[in-house]
Amino acid sequence: MKRKLKAYSLGLDFGTNSVRALLVDTGSGEEVSTAVVDYPSGQAGILLDPKDPNLARQNPTDYLEAMVKVVRQVLKRAGKVKKGFSPEQVIGIGVDTTGSTPLPVDRNGLPLAFHNDFKKNLNAQAWLWKDHTAFAEAQEITELAAKEHPEYLAKCGGVYSSEWFFSKILHCLRVDPKVFKAAYTWVECVDFIPAIITASLSPAKMKRSRCAAGHKAMFNRDWGGLPARDFLSRLDPRLGQLRDRLYDHTYTSDQAAGYLTGSWAKMLGLKPGIPVAVGAFDAHLGAVGAGVAPGKFVKIIGTSTCDICVWPNDRTLADIPGLCGIVDGSVLPGYFGLEAGQSAVGDIFNWFVNYLQPGGPRKGSHEELTRKAVSLLPGESGLLALDWNNGNRTILVDQRLTGLLLGQTLHTRPEEIYRALIEGTAFGALTIIKRFQEYGVEINEVINCGGIAEKNPLVMQIYADVLGLEMKVARSSQTCALGAAMAGAVVAGKAAGGYERFEEAQAAMCGVKPTSYKPRPEHHQVYQELYPLYRELHDAFGTRSWNGTLYHLMKDLLEIRDRQLEKARQLSRTARKRKK
Amino acid sequence: MKRKLKAYSLGLDFGTNSVRALLVDTGSGEEVSTAVVDYPSGQAGILLDPKDPNLARQNPTDYLEAMVKVVRQVLKRAGKVKKGFSPEQVIGIGVDTTGSTPLPVDRNGLPLAFHNDFKKNLNAQAWLWKDHTAFAEAQEITELAAKEHPEYLAKCGGVYSSEWFFSKILHCLRVDPKVFKAAYTWVECVDFIPAIITASLSPAKMKRSRCAAGHKAMFNRDWGGLPARDFLSRLDPRLGQLRDRLYDHTYTSDQAAGYLTGSWAKMLGLKPGIPVAVGAFDAHLGAVGAGVAPGKFVKIIGTSTCDICVWPNDRTLADIPGLCGIVDGSVLPGYFGLEAGQSAVGDIFNWFVNYLQPGGPRKGSHEELTRKAVSLLPGESGLLALDWNNGNRTILVDQRLTGLLLGQTLHTRPEEIYRALIEGTAFGALTIIKRFQEYGVEINEVINCGGIAEKNPLVMQIYADVLGLEMKVARSSQTCALGAAMAGAVVAGKAAGGYERFEEAQAAMCGVKPTSYKPRPEHHQVYQELYPLYRELHDAFGTRSWNGTLYHLMKDLLEIRDRQLEKARQLSRTARKRKK
Repeated sequence: MKRKLKAYSLGLDFGTNSVRALLVDTGSGEEVSTAVVDYPSGQAGILLDPKDPNLARQNPTDYLEAMVKVVRQVLKRAGKVKKGFSPEQVIGIGVDTTGSTPLPVDRNGLPLAFHNDFKKNLNAQAWLWKDHTAFAEAQEITELAAKEHPEYLAKCGGVYSSEWFFSKILHCLRVDPKVFKAAYTWVECVDFIPAIITASLSPAKMKRSRCAAGHKAMFNRDWGGLPARDFLSRLDPRLGQLRDRLYDHTYTSDQAAGYLTGSWAKMLGLKPGIPVAVGAFDAHLGAVGAGVAPGKFVKIIGTSTCDICVWPNDRTLADIPGLCGIVDGSVLPGYFGLEAGQSAVGDIFNWFVNYLQPGGPRKGSHEELTRKAVSLLPGESGLLALDWNNGNRTILVDQRLTGLLLGQTLHTRPEEIYRALIEGTAFGALTIIKRFQEYGVEINEVINCGGIAEKNPLVMQIYADVLGLEMKVARSSQTCALGAAMAGAVVAGKAAGGYERFEEAQAAMCGVKPTSYKPRPEHHQVYQELYPLYRELHDAFGTRSWNGTLYHLMKDLLEIRDRQLEKARQLSRTARKRKK
Repeated sequence: MKRKLKAYSLGLDFGTNSVRALLVDTGSGEEVSTAVVDYPSGQAGILLDPKDPNLARQNPTDYLEAMVKVVRQVLKRAGKVKKGFSPEQVIGIGVDTTGSTPLPVDRNGLPLAFHNDFKKNLNAQAWLWKDHTAFAEAQEITELAAKEHPEYLAKCGGVYSSEWFFSKILHCLRVDPKVFKAAYTWVECVDFIPAIITASLSPAKMKRSRCAAGHKAMFNRDWGGLPARDFLSRLDPRLGQLRDRLYDHTYTSDQAAGYLTGSWAKMLGLKPGIPVAVGAFDAHLGAVGAGVAPGKFVKIIGTSTCDICVWPNDRTLADIPGLCGIVDGSVLPGYFGLEAGQSAVGDIFNWFVNYLQPGGPRKGSHEELTRKAVSLLPGESGLLALDWNNGNRTILVDQRLTGLLLGQTLHTRPEEIYRALIEGTAFGALTIIKRFQEYGVEINEVINCGGIAEKNPLVMQIYADVLGLEMKVARSSQTCALGAAMAGAVVAGKAAGGYERFEEAQAAMCGVKPTSYKPRPEHHQVYQELYPLYRELHDAFGTRSWNGTLYHLMKDLLEIRDRQLEKARQLSRTARKRKK
């Protein structure tokens, strides 16, 4: 009997600065080869505006150029490491991207940025997730929704973000009506990529991502899809008109967005006709690649944190206040995808090391501080920190909150503060898990991925001790691309060497590392005493209900700050003019 | 007509590590010469116990040895710089010391430490002000007084300190009854020095300092002097018995403790028979040397702060809650001496620079941080700090409080924190001044002295901007020794070339530096917005009445800390044993 040929799936992970390709053996989950190609335009792939620090755009041409390069590289490498490998064995493609990263497109679904008229117009490019130019529009949408459609907000943490789809489109309409008018519709990057390589760009053909629609565009079947035309018209009549040119249906990533065209197959070096899965956001497919399942909570820990879990969509689930999103099918088909997150985790440790540089650049390195902090006992420093240096995403949904450190004496040392900052983020993580549990979501296991999970045993051990749960680490270092590859395997189907369902793909293709971090009971016990103190500070400064005065205190400080910063800018302008 | 010979007065300032002598021209206030001699014993003059970090004692022989040296030096130097100077021209001596620094003495008033039996016994030495071995006894005294004699506490901030007279004696009685029993009575260092050089050591002759008795031994004419015998007997019957061997009268520093004996005059190189003033504590005579008067508030700013002002004793004055002490005549005769203070000021800046070393030892120096912090506008950083890294002396009288920093973002820089720490101490200073004013004490002028006032224009300017008051700086860099010299001039009297009253001595002998710091209205205005936020934090974490939860939070953290520190010590002991 002839040995059956191995099958491979290709995951494409479009990040903020580069695209990664990962080729995975669908049978064993072996990650055969990987490649990364940077986007060529702007600064590290981001188009900036020196006059507006909130602006962050991307050239959609970059996605295509970098994709072609990275796929060719990953296939070439596979050929080198796997004897007898042939691109013919690649049975499917999955795609994840950042988001919300919408771009205006013409009637054919092609980016306006491809037209000569708009090539150089920043508003005609892809509006990268971290573009915050639409902060005023986000507030406007939030306020109107709170008044007229509180249900829209209930699924996305109570606040519609400046990073999201409609905020950005409304802002474009306001600041650049020409671009808005020229756009037939707007698509998410995550919809654009699968559509262009499968010739499904036309509105009739394009299968929009449930993940993007649900988490960023208030799409929900409870109210018949996108927000009501009336609602959008109240923001601006032209936005109401646009709704008719958006979409009524969305799809999960076990569906094929289409099939690879001959011309794209040739460019990429793949077999034409293989299925391409409907896209989903990086964190969501990352959770799939980490092994998310009911009871298995996934934490993607890097500069910030994204927390993902799922809950069967045939079981009741209340709206959980403070979550970033609750979307049926955004992670796994048949399950609510629940998203939460911390606005800063690694970023706080980096701030301490890079901005304060305790002890100088050498003595205050992460390594050195970790070495000293590791031998401290919980509570030994008498310090307690709130992890809000970049606001609080979950459960307070308040970007204006700031950090707090309490308990300093004349003997407090840098490693004690470093550890207190780590503990602060751990208490923040516990607060999120508790919120899920309070609303009936079971959490038995935590699977971690991302840079910190891979590289920082001190953080992982403290998390285990604080949460009282074993911290497992996903086997793959590229869970997003792996999750995308799984989507490729699922849309390819069993007959082609893939799978019928994500659960089967997960069983075969992902796992955890042999090393995990188990809670140490005597440490957990102390953290159980410390957590109520953290929670008291959290509620005192983070919620109106605890005490209005302290809640407003941080904001009052920021109001004074903003005024004084403006004054400082004026003074320095005046000083510069005088010099001239 | 023969030109009248100049008159000089000698100030002796017994500090923590050394004694300073200052020779002053009583007519002009010119500081003719000065000298400092370190105490020879222990570590920098302090006897320590490696097993007990709370213990700090001094060898009383050191005082005498160092005094002889320093007086001879200061006279020698005066002879060099002043043509025709003769020690015969020294008309009086004043003495200030640290306190409460009590020592057990025999029936003749000589320290037990002079006896062979007790020479090596730490409990028979002088119990230096910063000895904290008596923390349990302090609590015991506070609790009993709160129950039975709240009036005792009303004059000393509501808490009887472990640093004070009766706490230390009661502790000695408990841990070393042999020393207690051998002691006929106890004297403050500030009483011992003037007494020994004037042969007034015997209980009948010794004139006890009003300043020491009132601020540290609960002495007040309202209840007939020292605390009631019954009260002391309840703490321990032997303490009640000791009361009969203490004192019923106390004296202000315009009184002579006695006249320099022939033998001491010979040893010191001075004229016999010159008057020696009753002693007072360093801060109190320091305030005199800085020019304290009704409406003129003196701040002695160094590692910590001592704030002194006076109020006419014929005008009504309520018990001001939170003050360290209210004592008739402790600063100037005829006035209530009011003492307040901040437990850490320069120490907080030193902590930041020496313990955190932001940017390393060079980039994070005081000079470098000051250079950058000086150009920040008030409020520009969005930071707010509580200045409690060493507890809060006034107005909360709570040593267990700890520091707090609020408003950090991912961009907060070291100089911003440095400035916020300075501002925190300024807000603490304002809180003290406001407390005085709330109780009717007028404050029109602030005179600063001490290391920070002399050397740190940034701190002084921020204080001016926060307080909204001009910050003047005392002309002398040695206000304590100068105040002591003034006391010498007053007890010498006008006929001898001195003065009848302190006010006259001040008019002639002290003043302020030409440079002062004036509040900048636009900065003061912003600080007036920031102060209510500081005050909110201050009250939230510092007072029971605001909210019990936050009040207890800092203490709960410390309880956990102390337990974990003990555990860490045990673990390290075990580890050391295993190594052996």
